Amino acid sequence: MGYIKNKIILCFCILVTPILAPIEAQSTEWRKLDLDKTVLLTLPHGKVVIELAPQFSPKHVAQFSKLVKQGFYDGEKFYRVIDGFVAQGGPEGEGKKDKSVSTLVIEESWQTSKDWHFSIVQQQDLFAYQTGFKDGFAIARDKPTENTETWLTHCPGVLAMARGNEPDTATSHFYFVIGQAPRYLDRIMTVFGRVVYGMNHIQSIQRTSIIEGEKAINPETFTSIISMKLMRDVSEKERLLIEVEDTNTIDFIEKLDKRVLREDAFFYKKPPQVLDVCQVPVTSRIVK
Amino acid sequence: MGYIKNKIILCFCILVTPILAPIEAQSTEWRKLDLDKTVLLTLPHGKVVIELAPQFSPKHVAQFSKLVKQGFYDGEKFYRVIDGFVAQGGPEGEGKKDKSVSTLVIEESWQTSKDWHFSIVQQQDLFAYQTGFKDGFAIARDKPTENTETWLTHCPGVLAMARGNEPDTATSHFYFVIGQAPRYLDRIMTVFGRVVYGMNHIQSIQRTSIIEGEKAINPETFTSIISMKLMRDVSEKERLLIEVEDTNTIDFIEKLDKRVLREDAFFYKKPPQVLDVCQVPVTSRIVK
Repeated sequence: MGYIKNKIILCFCILVTPILAPIEAQSTEWRKLDLDKTVLLTLPHGKVVIELAPQFSPKHVAQFSKLVKQGFYDGEKFYRVIDGFVAQGGPEGEGKKDKSVSTLVIEESWQTSKDWHFSIVQQQDLFAYQTGFKDGFAIARDKPTENTETWLTHCPGVLAMARGNEPDTATSHFYFVIGQAPRYLDRIMTVFGRVVYGMNHIQSIQRTSIIEGEKAINPETFTSIISMKLMRDVSEKERLLIEVEDTNTIDFIEKLDKRVLREDAFFYKKPPQVLDVCQVPVTSRIVK
Repeated sequence: MGYIKNKIILCFCILVTPILAPIEAQSTEWRKLDLDKTVLLTLPHGKVVIELAPQFSPKHVAQFSKLVKQGFYDGEKFYRVIDGFVAQGGPEGEGKKDKSVSTLVIEESWQTSKDWHFSIVQQQDLFAYQTGFKDGFAIARDKPTENTETWLTHCPGVLAMARGNEPDTATSHFYFVIGQAPRYLDRIMTVFGRVVYGMNHIQSIQRTSIIEGEKAINPETFTSIISMKLMRDVSEKERLLIEVEDTNTIDFIEKLDKRVLREDAFFYKKPPQVLDVCQVPVTSRIVK
């Protein structure tokens, strides 16, 4: 996938283009996204596809999907975009559109049994007893018991609901994580989706926060949501059909193992045999 | 700094705009950047300021600075840009410009004494015995001895030199980290700078890698380097003068403590008392 140039032989020396960590071809099993659990977000500068997680955050997905179906977000803006942190959007001018939207009871985690099946990434990272993947989503959990607290973790690209100070105050405002995983937000926010295509476009959303000495940003330049639609409601012609890497497979676990061992010659010294769950790519492909 | 709306009282309810993790005003001590150790990178879509780290990677900084002074990078492109990973640039068409550039002996780490002073962030994170900040740079190190291996860690926004498979093969090709910290590259690459302004523009560099099913990207759309100059060589009128948060101070350590404790009411449940060094913002301000 990376853009890797050819080796060129010059004057008896092999001049190798600096390549920095080659990306290896690996076998991948693919999973089709469900059209009813997939959202097409159209921004002025590109299209983004989001996979929703009703299996983990059912009420948030139900409310978000309902709002998306109503065209609730169309024309709204990303009004709080902080580089390296989050891109937050929703209805501007509080108390108008948002007034009619119910508040949600937080879905910050769920319980799993001791022997719940997931693809483990790491034991005891900085924030959790275990991390791993389930259904393509990065998860973390406590030390396994019969009722193990398990949660979607705030990796770059996750979609979560904003809220006020109280836990059960989320309505319609949402954010994408656009920087180093703010995992201190785990278990106090509801993550309910993830970007599976077009993260580069999320990264290009106009920042709204400034630093001291900078000119204020004209709110008219804030990035608009042209439309947000369930993929089911997009005309067949305009659908962007994505398949994602199946993370519940032996192939994926083998990929994790390879990523730990780094056997490629580029790693002339091997790194510590650990993985940051938020630094493991889960790939996508376009099927139409 | 964040865009936080006013509270609006409606029908005896307080409707609070979902704000997600308020940013607190904190006292900050500022440090002026040295014009000879600061680079102004002009991209077609914005300006970026980079602080170099000659105190940690002297030979890489010397070579990079020399090339910058020659205008070596002007007109070159970011030819390997992988979303969530790195934006790599340098002279295209190997064996021409790059042929005349010396290879560099890797500066992947250095030794510090047991009682070396730095602002500690975390003991025993996933990749290192200790993490912290020194002179604004995120660092990590082994268990302290009289000769403690210490290194600049691959947080988002760092500037490092690309290389071939062998350690001492870097010449002029460089990369910025644009995604979750790839800390498995620590100690096998030379980090020698960091973005202190305009990271949003680095994030908007045209991606060059595609996924299966996507159209190949026309190399003519790859992002060009309009110019890269030492700030000293920029006319006074066009200089972008940045001050950065001084991370070697008590104020900064207090900021770290607050970040661990999260006493703000937004944190109705407190997160684990740990910090990811790559998720701690070091702020900048424009003084001209």
